[in-house]
Amino acid sequence: MNLEVIEGGITSPKGFISSGISCGIKKNNLQDLALIMSTKFCNCAGVYTKNIVKGAPLLVTKSHLENKTAQAIIINSGNANTCTGEAGIEDAKEMCRCTGEALQIEENNVLVASTGIIGVKLNIDAIKKSVPSLVKKLNKNGCKDAARAIITTDTFTKTLAVELEVGGKSVVIGAMAKGSGMIHPNMATMLSFITTDVNIDADLLDKALKESVRVSYNRISVDGDTSTNDMVLIMANGLAENPIIDEENEDYKIFLEALKILSIELAKMIAKDGEGATKLIECKVINVPGEKEGEILGKSVICSSLVKTALFGCSANWGRILDAIGYSGVDFDINKLEVLMESSKGSILVFKNGNPVDFSSEKSVDILSENTVGIVLNFNSGNSSVCCWGCDLTYDYVKINGSYMS
Amino acid sequence: MNLEVIEGGITSPKGFISSGISCGIKKNNLQDLALIMSTKFCNCAGVYTKNIVKGAPLLVTKSHLENKTAQAIIINSGNANTCTGEAGIEDAKEMCRCTGEALQIEENNVLVASTGIIGVKLNIDAIKKSVPSLVKKLNKNGCKDAARAIITTDTFTKTLAVELEVGGKSVVIGAMAKGSGMIHPNMATMLSFITTDVNIDADLLDKALKESVRVSYNRISVDGDTSTNDMVLIMANGLAENPIIDEENEDYKIFLEALKILSIELAKMIAKDGEGATKLIECKVINVPGEKEGEILGKSVICSSLVKTALFGCSANWGRILDAIGYSGVDFDINKLEVLMESSKGSILVFKNGNPVDFSSEKSVDILSENTVGIVLNFNSGNSSVCCWGCDLTYDYVKINGSYMS
Repeated sequence: MNLEVIEGGITSPKGFISSGISCGIKKNNLQDLALIMSTKFCNCAGVYTKNIVKGAPLLVTKSHLENKTAQAIIINSGNANTCTGEAGIEDAKEMCRCTGEALQIEENNVLVASTGIIGVKLNIDAIKKSVPSLVKKLNKNGCKDAARAIITTDTFTKTLAVELEVGGKSVVIGAMAKGSGMIHPNMATMLSFITTDVNIDADLLDKALKESVRVSYNRISVDGDTSTNDMVLIMANGLAENPIIDEENEDYKIFLEALKILSIELAKMIAKDGEGATKLIECKVINVPGEKEGEILGKSVICSSLVKTALFGCSANWGRILDAIGYSGVDFDINKLEVLMESSKGSILVFKNGNPVDFSSEKSVDILSENTVGIVLNFNSGNSSVCCWGCDLTYDYVKINGSYMS
Repeated sequence: MNLEVIEGGITSPKGFISSGISCGIKKNNLQDLALIMSTKFCNCAGVYTKNIVKGAPLLVTKSHLENKTAQAIIINSGNANTCTGEAGIEDAKEMCRCTGEALQIEENNVLVASTGIIGVKLNIDAIKKSVPSLVKKLNKNGCKDAARAIITTDTFTKTLAVELEVGGKSVVIGAMAKGSGMIHPNMATMLSFITTDVNIDADLLDKALKESVRVSYNRISVDGDTSTNDMVLIMANGLAENPIIDEENEDYKIFLEALKILSIELAKMIAKDGEGATKLIECKVINVPGEKEGEILGKSVICSSLVKTALFGCSANWGRILDAIGYSGVDFDINKLEVLMESSKGSILVFKNGNPVDFSSEKSVDILSENTVGIVLNFNSGNSSVCCWGCDLTYDYVKINGSYMS
């Protein structure tokens, strides 16, 4: 597959425009309201948090996606509109209604997402007042504004666009996502929106999204807390004019592969930008009997507070890694296990044949001081391999989350 | 039951002596070697970590306890003797051997426990050299020295003794424990040693220990990391001369009840003294269908980094509590749920009937500034209730665990 990363984001595929403004939910005129629109009707798919407590916007979006089509997504940050009772549901519906009115499309072709504090009534009046100017600002270069308007404690916006060839036509996939706390996705991440001009059947779009989420967003964790509002949405408007993908043929495989690559890169951005994080932790679990086991082992490592704080301190305290895989619930033979720690500065073997391996502490600190560090766990007992991503646990995580009603 | 808390600890029951010294494993002459001995042969029971990676001392202790009897326990801190291969097993055996020799008892009547860093070869020579003076120092007031010699990052020693009447005789139970990181016990806690002069059958002692561990140590968490070395041991020498407890009669129930109370108090001490903690968090899950569900819900709350940091900041950010129970895996009706936050300063209702309840932020900060705070989750859907204990997540947790090879 010939895949190229291109400038842009959600507005890079043909037919997509977007905008982002401040409507007054966040303080200090920070942007907090975003809109994505396709000029052509789209096949759509979504995956949602498995948290039993679900945000009102998820319930409304799910119901609007029953027919697997939509044309616009409105998103606010600063308030999750969750645990807000019946009034919350009405507010989420109202966001779709007034957006539909301003765009002159049916309200159930508008999807809605929210992120921010839980349990506080949404300022729906502020949103209603601002939707007309949000619509007026829709434009082909609006992906940066939209990406900025959906973030909360993120320190950078997360957008990506890739171009590839499907069925002899150029296809573009664009995306934006946001973190950066309450990140431990289970069937979805905090928020991610993907646009594409590929021509694809709605059921296959759904299948491709689920498969790509499984190997990307579902393999990251910032703090172990699965949000109530996790949602990934994808819109495909067909404007690339490739022969429609309506079976799992070569074109489907190419599109799925590109979607996976894009999703993994966005997931890594979310992990790297975890609240307070100074580094991305990449845990490579190799040669295990199955992907499921690999995922459990890898997640146990990236979720361990002790591993996370050790890496913040650039300490190769590998005993904590062995502890984390030991309580993961997966059985393994410790005598077959090899543990390496690595970065662009090199690698050190720390455990093999059931015994510690001596290493230079100077070299280990040097390796672990990089802003991307890897933990390689070779179980030598199967053919599956899995990668999971997390971040370190730092003073700033405590600072960000330890302030009043942060 | 008439239960009285008395001065002392593991040496309070008749026939127990102990000692604690510095042997040189820890720096700066800190105490790191402890010994407990009963003048009379004991029925013993143990529960151990469910971590697949198990410390060498656990394997040796388990094998020495096959006959359910022992007379002494030797414990070192500063080194966990875990992931140290065959040499680690030999070192753990050697600790029992040299202790047995000095005490003139068989080596398999000596149990062994270790806590500290994982993956570093134990300095067995230092221990061997010091065992004779450790034995020489055994005395009836040695419980303080022993309690000090088993701690690692703990900020205070954890001992307790209670007196009760069983079968017309005064029975004493003493205990000591240590935390304070890698605390998320699964069938045992980091380390806890219980002594008693009660006269009880070995199988019933084992049963009582397991039952008391289930409702105490297994309901606390400091950082979600289940240690490789968790172990709780109990020794009963029968010197109280009560009629032997060899069936689940009234005497058994009284003893079990006292053991539970003692274990819960020690578990709470461990949670309160979690690494870097400023407060004890008590999560009361009430009116749920079963204890199992209650435990899962309660643990999900006390393990949430976002709940822990919020409480560090005295923030009544109850949305994070709802998030944590929502991803716990237990199904519930959010409309029946009532959430309260409380301390000795009073309580506030924050959620009811599926909706937020207004509260004074000033009052909430006042309540949550206490060093023991409670979260009460009333699910109004059953007759079981469970309490779990944790602590807040603070800058100091990161500091303690983020330094090189801490």
